[in-house]
Amino acid sequence: MPAGLGEFDRISRFFKPLAAGIEGALELQDDAALISPPSGEELAVTTDAMVEGVHYLAGEDPARLARKLLRVNLSDLAAMGARPVAYTLTTVLPKSVGDDWLARLAAGLASDQEAFGLHLIGGDSVSTTGPVVLSVTALGAVPKGRALTRSGARPGDRVFVSGTLGDGALGLMAAKGELPHLSPGDVEALSSRYHLPTPRTGLGPRLLQLASACMDVSDGLPGDLAHICEASGVGARVEVERLPLSEAARRAIDADRSLLSTALSGGDDYELLFTAPPAAMEAIGGIAAELGIPLTPIGEIVEGDGVALVDRDGRPIENLHGWTHF
Amino acid sequence: MPAGLGEFDRISRFFKPLAAGIEGALELQDDAALISPPSGEELAVTTDAMVEGVHYLAGEDPARLARKLLRVNLSDLAAMGARPVAYTLTTVLPKSVGDDWLARLAAGLASDQEAFGLHLIGGDSVSTTGPVVLSVTALGAVPKGRALTRSGARPGDRVFVSGTLGDGALGLMAAKGELPHLSPGDVEALSSRYHLPTPRTGLGPRLLQLASACMDVSDGLPGDLAHICEASGVGARVEVERLPLSEAARRAIDADRSLLSTALSGGDDYELLFTAPPAAMEAIGGIAAELGIPLTPIGEIVEGDGVALVDRDGRPIENLHGWTHF
Repeated sequence: MPAGLGEFDRISRFFKPLAAGIEGALELQDDAALISPPSGEELAVTTDAMVEGVHYLAGEDPARLARKLLRVNLSDLAAMGARPVAYTLTTVLPKSVGDDWLARLAAGLASDQEAFGLHLIGGDSVSTTGPVVLSVTALGAVPKGRALTRSGARPGDRVFVSGTLGDGALGLMAAKGELPHLSPGDVEALSSRYHLPTPRTGLGPRLLQLASACMDVSDGLPGDLAHICEASGVGARVEVERLPLSEAARRAIDADRSLLSTALSGGDDYELLFTAPPAAMEAIGGIAAELGIPLTPIGEIVEGDGVALVDRDGRPIENLHGWTHF
Repeated sequence: MPAGLGEFDRISRFFKPLAAGIEGALELQDDAALISPPSGEELAVTTDAMVEGVHYLAGEDPARLARKLLRVNLSDLAAMGARPVAYTLTTVLPKSVGDDWLARLAAGLASDQEAFGLHLIGGDSVSTTGPVVLSVTALGAVPKGRALTRSGARPGDRVFVSGTLGDGALGLMAAKGELPHLSPGDVEALSSRYHLPTPRTGLGPRLLQLASACMDVSDGLPGDLAHICEASGVGARVEVERLPLSEAARRAIDADRSLLSTALSGGDDYELLFTAPPAAMEAIGGIAAELGIPLTPIGEIVEGDGVALVDRDGRPIENLHGWTHF
């Protein structure tokens, strides 16, 4: 790579190829991009940013970073039931960032564009005296009036979560070397979940007309479920023993019980948390089998408010730390 | 203002009111916003960011800053002929930024939302160890397939610019105290143009089906016009004596001829630069009169490539600094 390209050359070399597959990007040469939802659909719009030293460590591979940033945004689209279509990227870069770094960033974006079927349509490149900041605004398409929101949960609905929970939070600890009792394989399995979450872009659109409420788990299950409860005007009970754990997370918690609350509340899982009436159970089971993604019922929506963690007999768990029945 | 609100409280207090006027914002409580262009229209999408210490000085009034950031984005929408509809905002803030600062930022956004008829639909709020970064992605609506682009200029088209040129660049100098020979009134007039440009949101949509190419002047006339020429596969000749100057800019240049090239090339004007066939001249004159915005023909599109600056006799101006016929 030549070093020290100017802004226009950087856009031309690294970003223009990422916009080649979508007409409305206008080859990134105009003041704005153009986009229409397909007939009968509307656009879902979400924005997420990452800051060096806050959301990731300096020295992180820019390709992996780019992919995580895209995936965090795609997880938000999935939570609305929207298919990925396009995104804009703002890069805020100190002068020390060279063309090699940008080439790696673009390679990561290219890889996940291909994997998730979306395209770059625009952005801005500015300089800073501070740390790297990357911000993505992602656009998805969803049938008009059908998007999943947080406000439709009703008493009697079951609460589901996709995949496994806790790998993100335990993965961050593993990546930082804070889980020395784990095998190298488990460290790798968990930390890769943290570095490169799997947005449920295939699942989200399949939940339209089945789920009554949906969001992605980014801040931790109890807090995130509390958002659904608040938006829907209901309460929820979660049976902690039902929480789906990966084998690596299970071994980590078996070795150190205090990690259960980390796994439960740590966030960064980017799984879908959704509610659905009992009548939808069978259809949801079919989708899980078809997509090969566990969709686990972990509790139910009740009258009232707040999220209660309960044991298998329905008794509230007052102190997760002291609780040993998991 | 209470000091030290948490992220959710900050969103609730400062940003939620900005989203109250648009249903698809879903009160900022969901993972993504929903938006549809009106029937027969498509969305224009643009992104611009500002960094403390790069695009503005620390200590700048956050209200004015917010308005400038919105306006820079709205200028891009206007350049495509799109009407403003909605925007997302990413705030990247050091811990030192307090609630008072955010309240001012929100007040500035509220003021320009009202002035330009758009609404906040989402965003992200993250922390940083570095300077403030603010990024906006703005969405506009434009009749499908009719958006103005940079690629439609044809030989024989006239080149127009709205308003006056050079006030942005001279305004930055004035704001920094670098134009001490100017009267306080002229310093104020110029620096206010720099701090608070006027995006041509009323004009842009009126140019649909009249202009053959359009963009906004953000990097300086010659460079910006060169983008239109490159995208359209044509050249341009600009008669420097025709450039529309404000009275304050005229006085500044009369007092110091070296400021002519600053005014011409400095950028930050956020005026519309567009081309149109001679048959559109009368309609364009009518729009200028109706909107009360000067739309000045400053040159023409020719076969070939590149932008030539010429005098009133069509002779190339080799050295703008040494040129005294203005």
